[in-house]
Amino acid sequence: MRATVMYGAGDVRLEDVPDATVRQPTDAVVRVVASAICGSDLWAYGSMPASQQGRRMGHEFLGVVEDVGADVSGLQRGDLVVTPFVWADNTCDFCAEGLQTSCRHGGRYGLNGVDGGQGEAVGVPQAQGTLVKLPVGEDSALLPSPLTLSDVFCVGHHACVKAGVGPRTTVTVIGDGAVGLSAVLAARREGIERVRELTGGDGTHAVLECVGSKPAVEMAIGVIRDGGAISRVGLPQYTEGPLGPDLVLRNITITGGAAPARAYIEELLPDVLDGTVQPGRVFDRTVSLEQVPDGYRAMADREVLKVLIRP
Amino acid sequence: MRATVMYGAGDVRLEDVPDATVRQPTDAVVRVVASAICGSDLWAYGSMPASQQGRRMGHEFLGVVEDVGADVSGLQRGDLVVTPFVWADNTCDFCAEGLQTSCRHGGRYGLNGVDGGQGEAVGVPQAQGTLVKLPVGEDSALLPSPLTLSDVFCVGHHACVKAGVGPRTTVTVIGDGAVGLSAVLAARREGIERVRELTGGDGTHAVLECVGSKPAVEMAIGVIRDGGAISRVGLPQYTEGPLGPDLVLRNITITGGAAPARAYIEELLPDVLDGTVQPGRVFDRTVSLEQVPDGYRAMADREVLKVLIRP
Repeated sequence: MRATVMYGAGDVRLEDVPDATVRQPTDAVVRVVASAICGSDLWAYGSMPASQQGRRMGHEFLGVVEDVGADVSGLQRGDLVVTPFVWADNTCDFCAEGLQTSCRHGGRYGLNGVDGGQGEAVGVPQAQGTLVKLPVGEDSALLPSPLTLSDVFCVGHHACVKAGVGPRTTVTVIGDGAVGLSAVLAARREGIERVRELTGGDGTHAVLECVGSKPAVEMAIGVIRDGGAISRVGLPQYTEGPLGPDLVLRNITITGGAAPARAYIEELLPDVLDGTVQPGRVFDRTVSLEQVPDGYRAMADREVLKVLIRP
Repeated sequence: MRATVMYGAGDVRLEDVPDATVRQPTDAVVRVVASAICGSDLWAYGSMPASQQGRRMGHEFLGVVEDVGADVSGLQRGDLVVTPFVWADNTCDFCAEGLQTSCRHGGRYGLNGVDGGQGEAVGVPQAQGTLVKLPVGEDSALLPSPLTLSDVFCVGHHACVKAGVGPRTTVTVIGDGAVGLSAVLAARREGIERVRELTGGDGTHAVLECVGSKPAVEMAIGVIRDGGAISRVGLPQYTEGPLGPDLVLRNITITGGAAPARAYIEELLPDVLDGTVQPGRVFDRTVSLEQVPDGYRAMADREVLKVLIRP
C-alpha cells in the first residue's frame, strides 16, 4: 500500500510500504477514508534530522474497518470509525479516569512498527478500546467535522475542560491556528457569548494557550484574571517558564495537557453531526495522497491552515 | 499600647505605639487574646534591610471586639472573633467567588498605617466582612486551634481544595513546617487513609507543595501522577520553574495560591471546635509579648515549629 514517510526536515515522500495487517488479536485494519496533516507534524517537518529509515506520518484519520483480530468485539468489517490521535485500551485505571493519553497499554501511531494515518490503511492496535463508530456513510459530506474529533476539536475542548470553562466564564484564546480556532468553537459551545469581551483590566477567567511558545505563556499570565486558569494545549517549546510568587499571590492555575480525545468523542459527536459546531471548517485545502508533500509545504508556508487528505 | 516592630533582619522589638482606634466607620478595634508568628514573618526576619521606620508585624490573631465603627453591623463589644490573614469586604465580585485574597477593597495587616496582630490590639479595616465570631469564651483551652484558621490550617485546606483532593485521592505533602502539617491534617479530613501510600511508581494524584523553593516544585513534578495536580501554597522564592513539554504530555496541573481563609473559616470551624481536627497542635511554644523577639529567634533557629503569643 502507499503511505507518507518523512526522511528529514522538508523531506516528505509518498512510498510503497507493507500492507496494513492484523498482527495482534486486538488489532483492526482500517482503510483510510479521510486523514489530515497536524500542526505537530510540522515540528518534525521543520527540524527532523536526515534519516535513512524514515518515519511514518499521520495520527488523525477516519475510515472503514476491513479486518478485525480475534479479540476485538463491537467492531465489524464495513463500520466507519474515527480514531483519537493515540491508541489506548480504554479499560486501564488511567483510561477509566478519562486520561487515555496515559493508557498503560497505549501508544502512538507511526512508531514501533505501527502504521501512520497518512496512507491507504492502518493496522490499529487496541482497536476495541480505540476506535469509535460513526453513524454516517463514508460518502457523507460531513466527514471533515468528525475527523477533527481525532485531534484538534478535542484539543480545543480539553483546553476548556481543564480550565473549567462554563457559561459565565470569560475566555482569552492565544493562537489562531487550527487548535486555537477549535478552542474558540469549544468555548462558544460552553455558552460564552463574547469570547474576547473586554474585562476592564481584570483579565479573563480562562486563557487557552494554543501555541506552545514561551511568549505565549507569558502573554497568558498578562491577561489572566486573579483566580483564573491558563490551559496549555500547545506543546511547550521551552523547559522553564514563569512560576513566580505573583502566580501564587494571584491564585493562578496552570493546567492543560495532551487531550484524551477518546474520552470526549462520544460526547462531542452529536453536536458535530447535527451541525451545532462545524469544526471541519478548519480545513482549507483537500489533497490526494500524491499531493501530501505539497500539503506539508503549504501548511509550513502558512499558505493554508490545515490540510485534509483523501486517499 | 505595645506592639511588635521589625527594624531589619534579626531585629524585632516590642515598642509603645499609638492605641488602636476606629479610623473609618467600617473599622473595629479588637483586643488581641492570642496571636502567632508566621513562617512568612521569618522571610523578613532573615532578609529585611535595616529601616529607621520599622514595620508592624503579625497577621494571625483572635481577640475580643472593643469598639466598632458606625457602619459595622453584626459585631458588638465583647464578641470573640478570629481574622483571616488579610482583611476584605467579603462582598465584591472576587470575594463572592471565594477569592478574598484578591478583594477589591482588601489589604494586609501591618501596612499603610494598619496595625499588626503581634500586639495588644488591632484596628481592623472592613471589620464586618473580615471578622468571624467564635462561639467560645476567651478563656477556652481550645483557642490555639481556631487561631490556625487565621492562616495555616486554611492554607493547608486551600492546598487540598485547589488540588481537588477527595476520598480516593493519593496525596504527597512536601514540607514539614506548620503549613505542611496543616496540609496533612486537611488532607486526612477529606477522607484519606494512607497519605504517603506507596504508589508503585505512578506518583500521587495530588502533591501539596508547602515550601516555596525551586527544588520543592521539582520534587513535586517527580512524584505527581499523570493527570494530577501540584498545589503550591509556599510563596515561591524563584521566578522561573519547570513548565516544559513533559507537564503537558502528562496532563500535570500546577495550581494553589494564597489561601482565601475567609472563605473557609465557617466551614472548618465546627470540626476544629469539636476536636475532629486539632490544628492547634502545630504550636509548640507559647510566649508573652515581651518574649516575642526570642520567639522569632527560636523559630528561625528551628528550635520550635510555631510560636503562639499570649499578650
